[in-house]
Amino acid sequence: MSVTITIAIDAMGGDHGPVVTVPAALELLQNDPAIRVILVGQSSLLRAQLQLAPGYDAARVEIHEASQIVAMDEPPALALKKKKDSSMRVAINLVQEGRAQCCVSAGNTGALMATARFVLKMMPGIERPAIATTLPTIHGHCHVLDLGANVDCEPKHLCQFGLMGSILASAVDGLEQPTVGLLNIGHEAIKGNELIKQAGELLRQAPICFYGNVEGDDIYKGTVNVVVCDGFVGNVVLKTSEGLAWMLGQMIKREFQKNLLTRLAALVAMPVLNSFRRRVDHRQYNGASLLGLKGVVVKSHGGADAYAFRHALEYAAAEVRNKVLERIQDTVAKLTATQHRVPEPSNQEQEHRPS
Amino acid sequence: MSVTITIAIDAMGGDHGPVVTVPAALELLQNDPAIRVILVGQSSLLRAQLQLAPGYDAARVEIHEASQIVAMDEPPALALKKKKDSSMRVAINLVQEGRAQCCVSAGNTGALMATARFVLKMMPGIERPAIATTLPTIHGHCHVLDLGANVDCEPKHLCQFGLMGSILASAVDGLEQPTVGLLNIGHEAIKGNELIKQAGELLRQAPICFYGNVEGDDIYKGTVNVVVCDGFVGNVVLKTSEGLAWMLGQMIKREFQKNLLTRLAALVAMPVLNSFRRRVDHRQYNGASLLGLKGVVVKSHGGADAYAFRHALEYAAAEVRNKVLERIQDTVAKLTATQHRVPEPSNQEQEHRPS
Repeated sequence: MSVTITIAIDAMGGDHGPVVTVPAALELLQNDPAIRVILVGQSSLLRAQLQLAPGYDAARVEIHEASQIVAMDEPPALALKKKKDSSMRVAINLVQEGRAQCCVSAGNTGALMATARFVLKMMPGIERPAIATTLPTIHGHCHVLDLGANVDCEPKHLCQFGLMGSILASAVDGLEQPTVGLLNIGHEAIKGNELIKQAGELLRQAPICFYGNVEGDDIYKGTVNVVVCDGFVGNVVLKTSEGLAWMLGQMIKREFQKNLLTRLAALVAMPVLNSFRRRVDHRQYNGASLLGLKGVVVKSHGGADAYAFRHALEYAAAEVRNKVLERIQDTVAKLTATQHRVPEPSNQEQEHRPS
Repeated sequence: MSVTITIAIDAMGGDHGPVVTVPAALELLQNDPAIRVILVGQSSLLRAQLQLAPGYDAARVEIHEASQIVAMDEPPALALKKKKDSSMRVAINLVQEGRAQCCVSAGNTGALMATARFVLKMMPGIERPAIATTLPTIHGHCHVLDLGANVDCEPKHLCQFGLMGSILASAVDGLEQPTVGLLNIGHEAIKGNELIKQAGELLRQAPICFYGNVEGDDIYKGTVNVVVCDGFVGNVVLKTSEGLAWMLGQMIKREFQKNLLTRLAALVAMPVLNSFRRRVDHRQYNGASLLGLKGVVVKSHGGADAYAFRHALEYAAAEVRNKVLERIQDTVAKLTATQHRVPEPSNQEQEHRPS
């Protein structure tokens, strides 16, 4: 029998709040008997939402009062200072206190990151948290990090992301030697800016299976299991992909709605198109880990519906089950014990080499 | 009657060389009576290729001997030093000498950039060249720059890219006030890294219609006419988009090939799918301008086929017809005359604000 996992849910977070978070939690409880949830937020609202779904296993649902809500556009520093009783903060506190094994929020990413970092603290040996998620590839999926926690990285941070990503892929996907690629604008080691060249040198010396540089198209070709980049580039990759997929979807819909003939064709093609849509449904990929903290925190897309939010909950549970946190902690501790210092990259002259 | 435009073609460049470049040139001549071409390369090979297409208008085709070829993976510095009689170099020389109004190459981007910069020189007032291309949007297209000429930019360079992009969109698309967006990881002015925040300040003061920050998905939503970013980010955007579009194409193909029923559905849906494919055919978007130089140079994708290469030739001709070069030169000269100095960005403290 599997051990019960308790998930603290920021039930007020995201664009929709309890209307999405509560049904998603109840759905997960039905599918997975080894899950307990703590719904954190304004209890009257949460109770009202629960009453809409009679028949759930009340023994596995706890309501935990939190009076405040962090707004989606609230500056992180302000949320940290003024919202000490927010559903987000209290959910993270529950992880810190050991009352939950992980916490999931669809709230303001910046505030979540700042609060999680403040409450849970960083793991020794990891200086910056990273946001990691999976993206679909032609073969399956790959892990990409960082997706926006750090807009200005140093080479050693990218190296730490590579290490954490490798452990994540190994734990979650059961891979013995996940391959790690460094996102660049060419495959050769001499390509890229100074940050990337120095990060490449460090990654080559790290105890991971470093593939070398990869380019943007390698993400979807599934060239490697883990793609490392700084948070600025990662966020642009994610948003660009969302935009392109949306545009292509709109365009194909329009083509099929053009006239009577194309509408008939759509009728025939519909099952195939729907099956395609399900395969690339980004809601299945909802859930991003905040890695490097002393606790499991998963971020859901702010606009997630119940289906997508449930995926984020499952993602958090999988991270706990696969002991991602402990594995990263152990590996980093071992590395710190054996290494006297992180290798310093040599100073190469900058080259401009567009691809 | 329109004035004749002479295009110098690096006929040996790209993955396929004359097999692609010569037929593309002849096709263009047939469609556009106001074009002349100078095919630059090993004349015996070019003549052989021309003989496969009898009946072309020989009066509008000139062969110009160049004995060397720049390899696709040749280091730019080496190409510059050792390949003074390369088809690429000689084609650019023809522009410098005024014997052609523009030059098109599918060769090594780095070498093309380095050679063009060396032979043609930068425009006064523009410090760095930028690679600009159009990407499809839900409404039409937008211009994106830089796509890989500069891996490390300063704020003033991004501001210059914004200015050049605005003039390009205005000239090519006939827009009076093209909107210019700065690619960032959030819409608010406080988001992003130091480079982006300072570039935003400069762009706000520039004589363009600055929209503010845009995110990756705004590219395909057509939020603005011009998207500005540094060459590292731009290249990642381009390659990621290529990879995602390829993966989605492969997946939809597979879905339709699954079984007899889906194959029948494909048969019915084929005309619609083909029409969709034509709309998003990246070959139509082949052709990237090297902006900021004292001459028109257009880069074609290395793997372009004749259809795609012809689009790059047309793109170059349009740039000449619309006087993009003269317009950028005039605007920058006026700005330099009226401004005593480029505004310096104020020094703000770095904030980490993931989106």
